[in-house]
Amino acid sequence: MIHHFGDQLSHRIHQLSNPTVVGLDPRLKDIPSYIKDEAIKRHGKTLEAVAESILSFNKGIIDAVCHVVAIVKPQIAFYEQYGHAGLKAYEETVAYAHSKGLLVLGDVKRSDIGSTAEAYATGHLGTVDVFGEQLPTINTDAVTVNPYLGSDCIQPFLKVCKEQGKGIFVLVRTSNESADEIQGLPTGDSLVDEQVATLVEGWGRDLIGESGYSSVGAVVGATYPEEAKNLRQLMPHQIILVPGYGAQGGTAADVKPCFHANGTGAIVNSSRGIIFAYIADKMNERAYAEAARAAALRMKDDLNRLF
Amino acid sequence: MIHHFGDQLSHRIHQLSNPTVVGLDPRLKDIPSYIKDEAIKRHGKTLEAVAESILSFNKGIIDAVCHVVAIVKPQIAFYEQYGHAGLKAYEETVAYAHSKGLLVLGDVKRSDIGSTAEAYATGHLGTVDVFGEQLPTINTDAVTVNPYLGSDCIQPFLKVCKEQGKGIFVLVRTSNESADEIQGLPTGDSLVDEQVATLVEGWGRDLIGESGYSSVGAVVGATYPEEAKNLRQLMPHQIILVPGYGAQGGTAADVKPCFHANGTGAIVNSSRGIIFAYIADKMNERAYAEAARAAALRMKDDLNRLF
Repeated sequence: MIHHFGDQLSHRIHQLSNPTVVGLDPRLKDIPSYIKDEAIKRHGKTLEAVAESILSFNKGIIDAVCHVVAIVKPQIAFYEQYGHAGLKAYEETVAYAHSKGLLVLGDVKRSDIGSTAEAYATGHLGTVDVFGEQLPTINTDAVTVNPYLGSDCIQPFLKVCKEQGKGIFVLVRTSNESADEIQGLPTGDSLVDEQVATLVEGWGRDLIGESGYSSVGAVVGATYPEEAKNLRQLMPHQIILVPGYGAQGGTAADVKPCFHANGTGAIVNSSRGIIFAYIADKMNERAYAEAARAAALRMKDDLNRLF
Repeated sequence: MIHHFGDQLSHRIHQLSNPTVVGLDPRLKDIPSYIKDEAIKRHGKTLEAVAESILSFNKGIIDAVCHVVAIVKPQIAFYEQYGHAGLKAYEETVAYAHSKGLLVLGDVKRSDIGSTAEAYATGHLGTVDVFGEQLPTINTDAVTVNPYLGSDCIQPFLKVCKEQGKGIFVLVRTSNESADEIQGLPTGDSLVDEQVATLVEGWGRDLIGESGYSSVGAVVGATYPEEAKNLRQLMPHQIILVPGYGAQGGTAADVKPCFHANGTGAIVNSSRGIIFAYIADKMNERAYAEAARAAALRMKDDLNRLF
């Protein structure tokens, strides 16, 4: 086992020829009714039934895609909104994905000042002290983090990355419309997001692996292809996580500038487009996992045509 | 009951003559051993025992300060790091604080793109759909949010604030050393944080209450008093949450620029300085709650001397 997140991810993507990330954003309304009915039968119309519906849905997706993709990305907001029952489903999703050989990137976008960032870093990526014993709790392989507070809020994550072979992806340019309001402000000869990119490159310097990639990656949305080209150059050692493909309007051509010319260095997320493909493809809800697998394979082909 | 967060908070601060916020950051190592021993006796050395220690500690603090301060601020990282057991303790802390008449500000610093921000907003401040029924889950009165993604990530929070009388505090200038790296970048004639302040002022415009204050507040650290003066002017209707007093080095004089000249418009947080006052004051651990109450009263006096 390689204890370096950047290397592990690069290696697994190469093995599968697939830079696709499956986003596990389990919106309750779109989960097949037969799954929800079973959960309600056991727990009534409770938060526990919601949590069980989510976990059971996710297991079906994970089983279907675990030999097709390297990594899944649960968006914690869709779990956390259901309180501790939801967070339990998140933890169990992480554990189940691991049991099927998948890497897990927690999309948590956390950030706080030093001592608090340490609590996030150890809770999500490392181990916490439980009366003298070190225990993992959430145990994802990597998380997304927000850079607005600067270096001292990133350092605690870097420490855990070094000690435990984990990774982070720093938000540089997000995929939403109003990303420009702050990220696109001009400062000196560059934009704020380019300044952030330079910081990210620095944060990742001590964590570059044999693959040439750092365990410190970056998030760059597919919806700003021109800006993506600059950011790719400013962060040569970063694996770029690209949201915005598919449901958010980004195409394979849009994500291309996030890759290096040799076709490595980026991972592309699709959430709804894969996990709820059965709805778009008008398939029976009991075929949701099969539909997800087919969508992940279509996306692989679409991305592989780029290089 | 007033259904407007800005008004509720202003009213309660005025009643108590105390703009102090008690930060509930329950670091396990500093919780009195008699509390931890009792929890271990019941649950063994488990995450459940950690959660019970935290909740039991917090209840003592809440009982001690509920007639002295208007609002408490649990920092979610210190709960979340223990996984779902920790989040349960967070939820129970919120409920207990409410039962004692306190407002609760969740220090969560969340942010994400629109549809995901909606999940955070409804989960933390509103109600979520549980098979057709709307249920509150975390149920804090306000949360801190990170502005790096721009307006469309704030809108879902504003919607919940309007519908449910809740509030948000947007990070403008944080109290940590490296805050300057992004927040202090020059852009045009101003700094990035000043641009953010202008955005915050706009986001809060539709949520200004009878008190003259908006339910959209701002976070401005006590560690940059000069910058605080500018930011106070750019955000006349914002209640400013000031971290950095006490343990982080900020004094009453440092927080003064965050207030308006009439002594309103800011709330000042202290975490360790209050909840673990028994350690600094070398008191018996069984007197931790009493020590916290005394520290909150000292802080009240310290702040009241300003105006």
